Amino acid sequence: MRTRAAVTYGLNTKFDVKEVELDDPSATEVLVHLVASGICHSDMHHVTGDQIAQLPMIFGHEGAGVVEKVGSAVSHVKPGDHVVMSYLPSCGTCRWCTDGQTNLCDLGAYTVQGPQIDGTHRFHDDEGTGLGQFCLVSTFSEWTVVPGQSVVKVEPHYRLERACLVACGVTTGVGTAIYRGGVRPGDDVMVYGVGGIGMNIVQGAKVAGAKRIIACDINDWKLEQSKLFGATHTVNPTVTDPVEFATELTWGVGVDRSFEAIATPETIGAAVRSVRKGGVATVVGLTRHDQPDIPINPSEFVLWQKTLTGSLNGGCNPRNDIPAMLRLWDSGQIDLDGLVTKEYRLEEINEAYDDLLAGKNLRGVIRYEWADNGVDA
Amino acid sequence: MRTRAAVTYGLNTKFDVKEVELDDPSATEVLVHLVASGICHSDMHHVTGDQIAQLPMIFGHEGAGVVEKVGSAVSHVKPGDHVVMSYLPSCGTCRWCTDGQTNLCDLGAYTVQGPQIDGTHRFHDDEGTGLGQFCLVSTFSEWTVVPGQSVVKVEPHYRLERACLVACGVTTGVGTAIYRGGVRPGDDVMVYGVGGIGMNIVQGAKVAGAKRIIACDINDWKLEQSKLFGATHTVNPTVTDPVEFATELTWGVGVDRSFEAIATPETIGAAVRSVRKGGVATVVGLTRHDQPDIPINPSEFVLWQKTLTGSLNGGCNPRNDIPAMLRLWDSGQIDLDGLVTKEYRLEEINEAYDDLLAGKNLRGVIRYEWADNGVDA
Repeated sequence: MRTRAAVTYGLNTKFDVKEVELDDPSATEVLVHLVASGICHSDMHHVTGDQIAQLPMIFGHEGAGVVEKVGSAVSHVKPGDHVVMSYLPSCGTCRWCTDGQTNLCDLGAYTVQGPQIDGTHRFHDDEGTGLGQFCLVSTFSEWTVVPGQSVVKVEPHYRLERACLVACGVTTGVGTAIYRGGVRPGDDVMVYGVGGIGMNIVQGAKVAGAKRIIACDINDWKLEQSKLFGATHTVNPTVTDPVEFATELTWGVGVDRSFEAIATPETIGAAVRSVRKGGVATVVGLTRHDQPDIPINPSEFVLWQKTLTGSLNGGCNPRNDIPAMLRLWDSGQIDLDGLVTKEYRLEEINEAYDDLLAGKNLRGVIRYEWADNGVDA
Repeated sequence: MRTRAAVTYGLNTKFDVKEVELDDPSATEVLVHLVASGICHSDMHHVTGDQIAQLPMIFGHEGAGVVEKVGSAVSHVKPGDHVVMSYLPSCGTCRWCTDGQTNLCDLGAYTVQGPQIDGTHRFHDDEGTGLGQFCLVSTFSEWTVVPGQSVVKVEPHYRLERACLVACGVTTGVGTAIYRGGVRPGDDVMVYGVGGIGMNIVQGAKVAGAKRIIACDINDWKLEQSKLFGATHTVNPTVTDPVEFATELTWGVGVDRSFEAIATPETIGAAVRSVRKGGVATVVGLTRHDQPDIPINPSEFVLWQKTLTGSLNGGCNPRNDIPAMLRLWDSGQIDLDGLVTKEYRLEEINEAYDDLLAGKNLRGVIRYEWADNGVDA
């Protein structure tokens, strides 16, 4: 079939929005009609070469839509089902999946390689070139074919143009606060970087009962926004040293948990220095694959028994946690609407990333036209 | 009273063994007649200035002996009791003590300052200079006066010339494997550096049921010794790349837990790279206070969700874990005798440290003469 998609042919090139050919799903795959896709910085990290992915590729990994067709071996979804796509497939059989860490599934290795798991492409341009699928999903396309393992059925009352954010940004941020960082009621928390991920760490910390939540960013507009998500204090590091701020606020003790959603060595070091004895700093931002050393004195770990850890998708198990995060949205404990600064059409994807890189958006969303009046219309 | 002690007057000077004056214990203190003291590298890190301590100081922090006299406010020990001294005092009332992390007790700040908690000295040289007490204990002295919080009563059948090692090296190593690293039955484990601490990590991993224990050191004699404590594989990094060795041995997966008991940035980085997805690397070695950056790519934490943590005294609560480790000795689950390569007299302390720095000893022990035929003789 034909579909419009945004194709990336080379490093640091603009997205090329065009019609391409999409094959039928294989026995284990699913054809999805997309309602919306989030605009996440992680795609851009692969477009710029910060991280390595095979090109050409159709990016986009925060998608939600409606199942149109399923392969003969797929039984957990059927045509008409509403689904959020997981950017991390989970096979259900590897060591990590069976140990409750499906975010570490061995199929994760396929997410940047391009072809589907069987080694063939579903997308092709009119010159006959196979087009890779980022994270096996490719949500920058009106239609996509994905592994059955990549779709998670959700209840039909969720507005998919917001639910799509749960595929990555929300699970990653809220999960990082709750699962990986282990924020407990009464904790003091510091969040370095309050963009699309950091803002969800802020609201995750609030859900977990944090007492004080310090948001740190060089963008004053984002700092103001962070107060709407639960930040009790804000620090702009161009004005105030954030480690000193955290130390003074806590009577010299340090915060219980810190989070780093920027991925510079300096802010990772600051995150470790911000926490108290026995505290935990959690890194979540993607960085360059050849990133230089982290400026941390090992004594932080030995004498103060601090911990530096990281988070892939917030430590979430997508099949469990995509629905779980949506339930938090249902109950009003987290806010998805406030995360979306602007909606775009697929044709506006380059503008959407320009806005993201200019710090204008918490999160942009691509909304596909066919579902403008609701997917049931 | 008079006592012989090893005094350190300046950075990088030899220990000066001489008679000094020792005051009576205050109401909250205890006078201890030492049977033995371990020779630990941590003292030397403060003699060289790697770590900062106030001088002049009487070092030594792995001590065991017999209580001679107690202050009026001390009720948990009495004259004649056998005690191991904890190098980490625990007040029992601060945030950390009451949260089950007495190794992080706020009194820890006093361990390098010199005077006792009340700001006065118990030791004085004949010129009238107050002599500081390392970790408030000063075990390089025949007699010492220490806070009541620093002594842990132990059953009288333990040979104190070995039990002294439980004060630091054994709790730190075994505790690091069990508590901080969380080694589980069947785990594959890698230990960078198998000196006095690393060897105890090896035997701690064995007690915890590790399947394969890879010892890594540039000293072939220590590698041979490590096999006696439970190492199943040995790697000399001057011959074989340890990260590659660990990766190949585990079919490309990485070990479950790694430990770093050397404290160089390079080996800390290697420890992180050695573990599998979701694995934990634990740092335990003391390092320079101005140590340079750690060469770790942040992706290790974000994409592979690894954890880097540290260990102060193995995460042990001394009052609980000093007796606990001695019970493991009683039952034959850990070996203390094999750790001691050589015994020294106090007058031989400079030779003892020369041997340590030359890599000749796993652990040296100073044995005080009065107790040569057993402390009950």
